[in-house]
Amino acid sequence: MYTLVVDCMGSDGGSKVTVAGIKLFLTKHSNVKIIAVGKKEELEELQSENNVEIVDARDVVPMESGALEVMRMRKSSMMIALDLMKENGYDGVVSAGSTGGFLSAATVKLKLVEGVDRAALISPFPTAIKGKKVVVLDIGASNENTPEQLVQFAKMGRIYSNKVMKVEKPKIYLLSNGAEDEKGSPEVKEAHKMLKEMNFEGFVGNIEGRDALNGDCDVIVTGGFAGNVFLKSVEGVASMMKGMIKKAFYRNLKSKIGYVLAKKGFDEMSETMDYKSTGGAMLLGVNGVVVKAHGSSDGYSFSCALDVAYRMVEGKVVELLKQGVGEIE
Amino acid sequence: MYTLVVDCMGSDGGSKVTVAGIKLFLTKHSNVKIIAVGKKEELEELQSENNVEIVDARDVVPMESGALEVMRMRKSSMMIALDLMKENGYDGVVSAGSTGGFLSAATVKLKLVEGVDRAALISPFPTAIKGKKVVVLDIGASNENTPEQLVQFAKMGRIYSNKVMKVEKPKIYLLSNGAEDEKGSPEVKEAHKMLKEMNFEGFVGNIEGRDALNGDCDVIVTGGFAGNVFLKSVEGVASMMKGMIKKAFYRNLKSKIGYVLAKKGFDEMSETMDYKSTGGAMLLGVNGVVVKAHGSSDGYSFSCALDVAYRMVEGKVVELLKQGVGEIE
Repeated sequence: MYTLVVDCMGSDGGSKVTVAGIKLFLTKHSNVKIIAVGKKEELEELQSENNVEIVDARDVVPMESGALEVMRMRKSSMMIALDLMKENGYDGVVSAGSTGGFLSAATVKLKLVEGVDRAALISPFPTAIKGKKVVVLDIGASNENTPEQLVQFAKMGRIYSNKVMKVEKPKIYLLSNGAEDEKGSPEVKEAHKMLKEMNFEGFVGNIEGRDALNGDCDVIVTGGFAGNVFLKSVEGVASMMKGMIKKAFYRNLKSKIGYVLAKKGFDEMSETMDYKSTGGAMLLGVNGVVVKAHGSSDGYSFSCALDVAYRMVEGKVVELLKQGVGEIE
Repeated sequence: MYTLVVDCMGSDGGSKVTVAGIKLFLTKHSNVKIIAVGKKEELEELQSENNVEIVDARDVVPMESGALEVMRMRKSSMMIALDLMKENGYDGVVSAGSTGGFLSAATVKLKLVEGVDRAALISPFPTAIKGKKVVVLDIGASNENTPEQLVQFAKMGRIYSNKVMKVEKPKIYLLSNGAEDEKGSPEVKEAHKMLKEMNFEGFVGNIEGRDALNGDCDVIVTGGFAGNVFLKSVEGVASMMKGMIKKAFYRNLKSKIGYVLAKKGFDEMSETMDYKSTGGAMLLGVNGVVVKAHGSSDGYSFSCALDVAYRMVEGKVVELLKQGVGEIE
């Protein structure tokens, strides 16, 4: 039996979304206990569930809160969830609340795994190949990273791809400004050299942003600053183009009929580009499974975030990280 | 009368493309002389043009050549074009050849403007607002940049936006991992502070990749590494989604009819997302106008690159850079 602690309050859609997500998740998993933290009057629907324990929390962390603000809100659902996780050694914690606040507070509370210098935020991206996702880390836990940290990210990414995404032999790349070995920021160049010298299993070489989503890669390693720029550029262009597609179809009656006729292909496209099913972003390198669901989650995507936490627990990701991310292999 | 030197050989499409581009350009500009450098037997079509001087060059720089390789190929069209530019103080030079090679060789030959620490590569991006473009610099001339260099880029970007894009009061942003003032890599944070303290005209604040193309910004300042990641991610997602749109329409007869009905809106979308009309990337901070046309240029886009060079010369961009990019205002 696994135990996941859930911050039920922090999401744009409020507790309705998280409650729906938990219920959906539990229809698929009977071996998981959920500790649901939040205003108990909003969680009543969960009382009839077998594997749910409700813990009352009166405060809600505002969506844009930073780390300090969160740490001060000791009676918030987010902090109580993290406290419960820490005190009881539960398997994982999931929140759709303030990203910065949740991740920093989780790092402070749960502490880094020994040998890990920096936690990394990892997230799967859709690729040009249907059904294939690539994980990218770090997408924003740090503002700058050393070459050694990039090598640690490569190790964490490999474990994640193998154990959670179920890729047998993950192909790992460094995000750079050119595919050639000698391209990159000073940190990327040095990390490249280190990975080559240690014959890092699965390391292929550098990759440019334009090829990152071609479906060939399993893991893309980057410092947090460039990774965040990558994440947000991809999201930005995708959403801009989605808006343009909508506009093109809504132009007039003719184009609307055109939409009806071409709908199937475009539905498939939205499915491929759908970030909802990815479950959000995962914090790797801390003592415990930490999943940050999208703030804009609906019930389905929140249940996907719980699924990811479950798969991370089942894949013993944290135990594997403890076995040697810090060591040079 | 302005004079532009053109490397007619370095392009995926060969001299056919550059010759067509020059001819198209000259139909619109009678006050420009073109020095066309390349294999003279391939440039015969230009002999009948009034304002063209053909200079024979026997060697062609391969597309993937680095700086050293280019510098060694003294009889290549690219090096002869740069030599002519330097010796005669011509107004500008345009090439569609190897990016790395051309830009490095141009920097070595023409030298940096006094007070400029690093040249920056600038390029316009389409935005969500039809017809509005935003310029981003540096998109890859450097691998790392100091805060002082970022401030210089802001100045160069402002001059470019004002003089070439004709934006009266350019709105300038720093590309960062969050819109808040305190977000960013150490360099971005420091540059932000410097720009604020000097009351830099037009500086608004930080912007995330996802908002960079919303049409509100005129200039986005970034270090070359993150800028290159931004450029290539944007290109990558845009091309991936274009492929998906095509696939969705080509699915079956019904969807093909759908395409015919919705075509107008989608044509407009391609136009908005079209990188061909942007003319390529411009190197700012060297003594002379340097334009790198897309390697995959066709005649039309090569003529756009010549247009950009013309507008930079007409806008006296280099003279303005000389007047004080290095100084703190």
